[in-house]
Amino acid sequence: MSDSKTEIFSSRRAFLRGAAASGAGALAAVGATASTKPDKLITDIQPWAQELGDGVDVVPYGLPIEHEADVIRRNVPWLTADAISSVNFTPIHALDGTITPQGCAFERHHSGAIDLKKQDYRLMINGLVDTPLVFTYADLERFPRENHVYFCECAANTGMEWAGAQLNGAQFTHGMVHNMEYSGVALRTLLNEAGLGKAGVLKDKWVFVEGADASSNGRSIPMEKALDDVMVAFKANGEALRKEHGYPVRLVVPGWEGNMWVKWIRRIEVMDQAVESREETSKYTDTLEDGFSRKWTWAMDAKSVITSPSPQVPVEHGRGPLVITGLAWSGRGSIKRVDVSKDGGKSWETARLARPGEPKAVSRFYLDFLWDGNEMLLQSRAIDDTGYIQPTKGMLRGVRGLNSIYHNNGIQTWHVAQNGEVENVEVS
Amino acid sequence: MSDSKTEIFSSRRAFLRGAAASGAGALAAVGATASTKPDKLITDIQPWAQELGDGVDVVPYGLPIEHEADVIRRNVPWLTADAISSVNFTPIHALDGTITPQGCAFERHHSGAIDLKKQDYRLMINGLVDTPLVFTYADLERFPRENHVYFCECAANTGMEWAGAQLNGAQFTHGMVHNMEYSGVALRTLLNEAGLGKAGVLKDKWVFVEGADASSNGRSIPMEKALDDVMVAFKANGEALRKEHGYPVRLVVPGWEGNMWVKWIRRIEVMDQAVESREETSKYTDTLEDGFSRKWTWAMDAKSVITSPSPQVPVEHGRGPLVITGLAWSGRGSIKRVDVSKDGGKSWETARLARPGEPKAVSRFYLDFLWDGNEMLLQSRAIDDTGYIQPTKGMLRGVRGLNSIYHNNGIQTWHVAQNGEVENVEVS
Repeated sequence: MSDSKTEIFSSRRAFLRGAAASGAGALAAVGATASTKPDKLITDIQPWAQELGDGVDVVPYGLPIEHEADVIRRNVPWLTADAISSVNFTPIHALDGTITPQGCAFERHHSGAIDLKKQDYRLMINGLVDTPLVFTYADLERFPRENHVYFCECAANTGMEWAGAQLNGAQFTHGMVHNMEYSGVALRTLLNEAGLGKAGVLKDKWVFVEGADASSNGRSIPMEKALDDVMVAFKANGEALRKEHGYPVRLVVPGWEGNMWVKWIRRIEVMDQAVESREETSKYTDTLEDGFSRKWTWAMDAKSVITSPSPQVPVEHGRGPLVITGLAWSGRGSIKRVDVSKDGGKSWETARLARPGEPKAVSRFYLDFLWDGNEMLLQSRAIDDTGYIQPTKGMLRGVRGLNSIYHNNGIQTWHVAQNGEVENVEVS
Repeated sequence: MSDSKTEIFSSRRAFLRGAAASGAGALAAVGATASTKPDKLITDIQPWAQELGDGVDVVPYGLPIEHEADVIRRNVPWLTADAISSVNFTPIHALDGTITPQGCAFERHHSGAIDLKKQDYRLMINGLVDTPLVFTYADLERFPRENHVYFCECAANTGMEWAGAQLNGAQFTHGMVHNMEYSGVALRTLLNEAGLGKAGVLKDKWVFVEGADASSNGRSIPMEKALDDVMVAFKANGEALRKEHGYPVRLVVPGWEGNMWVKWIRRIEVMDQAVESREETSKYTDTLEDGFSRKWTWAMDAKSVITSPSPQVPVEHGRGPLVITGLAWSGRGSIKRVDVSKDGGKSWETARLARPGEPKAVSRFYLDFLWDGNEMLLQSRAIDDTGYIQPTKGMLRGVRGLNSIYHNNGIQTWHVAQNGEVENVEVS
């Protein structure tokens, strides 16, 4: 190695020594986590090193190992009347990183998951367009494609907590969210193919989008958003959409409530007004204290939750080094900062973001510290690049009263007991 | 809307009109891809809109829909003697975006995939350390974690093509690669926990890493790399590693050949020299024309491949708008540019990267154009941020002769016939 390389190497080394203070150095200060005495599992030849494992040519599509059988989507039985119109929650308490695997990504369906083959798939664009068009799946594949990582959150996520702590687990309080890499065609590309000359002044126009399932789940989207970042997507995390995620084609409406991300999308109509359908009037609106409802609430405001420790992931190792981790996202931009409190919001410290925030995508945060074994009231608050700070539940109730269900982005509190058990609580 | 907002909106609109030239505009020039006559699938009420779909509460972990049953890992039966030491290839021809789902991500195993429970897992760090340590899985979870997206490529990827075009499909020629988001602990954090004071001058030192399976698959890694970006990872794409990917813990050695990414990692020994094990001498080295082998070849040089069209994905729609897409990666940095040729390398045009390249991660590229229906010799070449340009197979053979197997990053050629069929060919 050259002298200059050696120098770089030495200084990096010095930097690492310094940086280790919050990690290994800190661990040593309370007693190492690791044992210095090898146990039988190290000194003996283990059974799995004495025999051959599975030949896995027989696993063309690998499933999670059986020891992870509890890392699955779950539902809240009392929440919906029937499995045909239900919701299954992401096991966010057991995941790390930011990407949600499709297999365990939350999904909401209003009339079940339909079986729609690619060769039967059609997408119609009609209404105020120069030429109404019908696209096959193969047609869609011929347009320029985009790739983006976006979160999708149901407007009802955390809705059951509006009136107070209800559900004991991050999966249930905050699991109606997933974060995937989508591939597909920009909706503006398809709208331009049909031609928007006839539509006139575009800023006053809307698209009405509906799915091919019996519910149709129709929603109105202002043209400005439709021409901005909405995607007609056919892949998530590289592969075809799962049946329950809208195979073969769904809408992706970045940063906006999940109900607008119409699955099995069949029709896009350019209109001069919003339809004001069931899904955007009696549902998915916020009813205020005086009984009036806000007309539109599309963007999902900045939000965060600590996924571990949390009620499903208690602290089992006692005092000493503890990693607090969680997720943060904003429908209005990128996550700029996440703060963590251990005393129910009296004091805050800045958590570490695993990677710089990306627009309308989930960020992972960590706070590494030495737990003294005393009880804690853990909270996190997200701050996005618009400067918006995630509010407390009390602040939201102050503005919106107690009639609300949807769009609850209030700060969540977990109580950690001295024995490491974690409970969903409210702080006043 | 305010005047200034209107103005922004109008100018964006103007920009979109211009940008559409390569998409919708170009399509119109050759005849629209989409039909203007709605067929029965649009005018009738489709069967899937008349009935309820599946209630999917019963799908705690969703699998790909049955219509995608061909998007699976596959092997090349003659390549390895036994399923117990074999390799399964990613179906890259059928994927889009950059993330590889774990279920269909390539995997190579030398003595089968072992069943190792978290509670039985141990990781020992020994050798030239101040305090030899043994970590349980729960110990590892107490150290500061990192998240990174990295590609993993087998040194043998494309190796069968060294002597000429052999395998008819991008899955088989280039499918020994995957790209996932890893969560875990930096190896430097664990080495610092054990203490490297005793090791002395670090730039001369090595770590020897081995797995818990019967093959042990031991590899030597220079200390400089070990302290740089190597990870001890326990999650991929957010969830636990699949059994065949090394559950519960594997090594991640960014940019370097896949064989070093030891699965089921059990031991890390700090040494004052390389072991020169079987896996780094008789295997995974490049033998030159004179019979001598290069001692070390760790980093995977810049490489790319067109995944569609390709032999498994012929052009079925005839002339007109065609999307060419593929993957590019470099073990030495980020992908800066990808060029595509349609005439076997005589002329090149710059492809569109879906997102800016990230270090040691896969990039997705697209080229949208109007196919005239004449035959093509499709090639892609990757350029990374070191300035390195992916070479032709001929250039590689000129330097390394014909004895090589590993580290073939030569430019791949697909012949597209007038009928749209695609074949793996060589151009001189």
